Amino acid sequence: MGITQLETAPEPKYWHLKTVLSDALDKEFAVGEILPNERDLAARFGVARATLRQALEQLELEGRLQRRRGVGTTVAPPRVGVAVEPARHTWPGAAGDDWQPVDAIETDELPTAVARLLETAPGEAVHLVRRSRVSAQQPVAAELLYVRADAAPAGADAPPLDSVARAHAVLGALQELDLDGQDRTVELGSARAEDARQLDRLPGAPVLVVTTRYVSRGRAVAVAVSTYRADTCRLTFGERETEPLLAS
Amino acid sequence: MGITQLETAPEPKYWHLKTVLSDALDKEFAVGEILPNERDLAARFGVARATLRQALEQLELEGRLQRRRGVGTTVAPPRVGVAVEPARHTWPGAAGDDWQPVDAIETDELPTAVARLLETAPGEAVHLVRRSRVSAQQPVAAELLYVRADAAPAGADAPPLDSVARAHAVLGALQELDLDGQDRTVELGSARAEDARQLDRLPGAPVLVVTTRYVSRGRAVAVAVSTYRADTCRLTFGERETEPLLAS
Repeated sequence: MGITQLETAPEPKYWHLKTVLSDALDKEFAVGEILPNERDLAARFGVARATLRQALEQLELEGRLQRRRGVGTTVAPPRVGVAVEPARHTWPGAAGDDWQPVDAIETDELPTAVARLLETAPGEAVHLVRRSRVSAQQPVAAELLYVRADAAPAGADAPPLDSVARAHAVLGALQELDLDGQDRTVELGSARAEDARQLDRLPGAPVLVVTTRYVSRGRAVAVAVSTYRADTCRLTFGERETEPLLAS
Repeated sequence: MGITQLETAPEPKYWHLKTVLSDALDKEFAVGEILPNERDLAARFGVARATLRQALEQLELEGRLQRRRGVGTTVAPPRVGVAVEPARHTWPGAAGDDWQPVDAIETDELPTAVARLLETAPGEAVHLVRRSRVSAQQPVAAELLYVRADAAPAGADAPPLDSVARAHAVLGALQELDLDGQDRTVELGSARAEDARQLDRLPGAPVLVVTTRYVSRGRAVAVAVSTYRADTCRLTFGERETEPLLAS
């Protein structure tokens, strides 16, 4: 890469402003405090509104600021550590899992990536369980959990279940299966309208999308697409013995 | 959360446009193709330029589009899976590690979060090793690896080393220590000017920041802050047996 410590980086104006603003946040503002309006801030720092807005966007990406409808821009509290692997080798819905089932339906409309991971045939129906996760009284994540219908034939022969009972039945059926392993990816995404509502954000807000595939007897039987608020969450991945320190 | 499948979400205009644009990308454009300019696109879809720009930003967050200086907006290739845990229980710089050391210095300027994780005293100097990671000929990540000076007394008594040799010496010294475990967090961030240059992005571009703490004999001896391009990378976390499928 040929980079040495002596090279100086060309810093755009908004980047320098961001550093100055960040210092001001440390020294002059408390968590939750509402920032002055953009016009006043731009005047105070002697910059154009467009430059100011870019700097505010950076600080929002870094979790220093929150923009809320009807409130304005406030100083954000530190991000909360949210454990993504509370225990390896457990199915969703296992004891100690802090997700709440919301409902479940049957659907054959799978996102392409999910259909590929589950290796379903076109038109094949699966269970779709929606779950939500709350930490420190705040919604932190919304999940769409796709489960192969043949892996969890929950309620197929039973009397019709309401959608919450169906969610519990599907999750219960999973616990009966052998779990070979799970793997996951984390990527940046933007909140779908429904997730945004569940997470109390605007549609399109940056989110961290965690896709987990659960494998049983050599084939994928469930895929969870979990959408975490990127503004308030740090995802933590830990081995048991060291987890508490970094998560705190 | 009290959400049912019947509730309809209020969809802002840019969100609807994003869906329409996304379909158009699937059907009419090839990977790498340059999109028409904003004025023409806004006219074609009958929307204001501001609405168009918001929709383009969403698609960029989702990794569908790339904006490049001097080129314009192009259709992005699918994100590349980058393994964050190629092997658990190894130190940075272990065999099979695909990071390249760039240089190393001694510094006592630690970010607050790093000083807290390493439990260093104010003013205490540490090794700072810079590394970079390339995948499919593209830079995907830049890393700042902080190592306690007493954990890796590399080069302290030896003749002065150049900074690349020092990086290798520090990494080599780590391999001699017992590794109790490692834990990590993943969060959204914005690229610092130096990282941006190394990653071929603009300062402030969204990045995924992976912070890994390495623990030896009950105390933290190294902290790596790895900055991954959020536009081109999916971070993969896998157990060995299932990894190849999801990473593909």
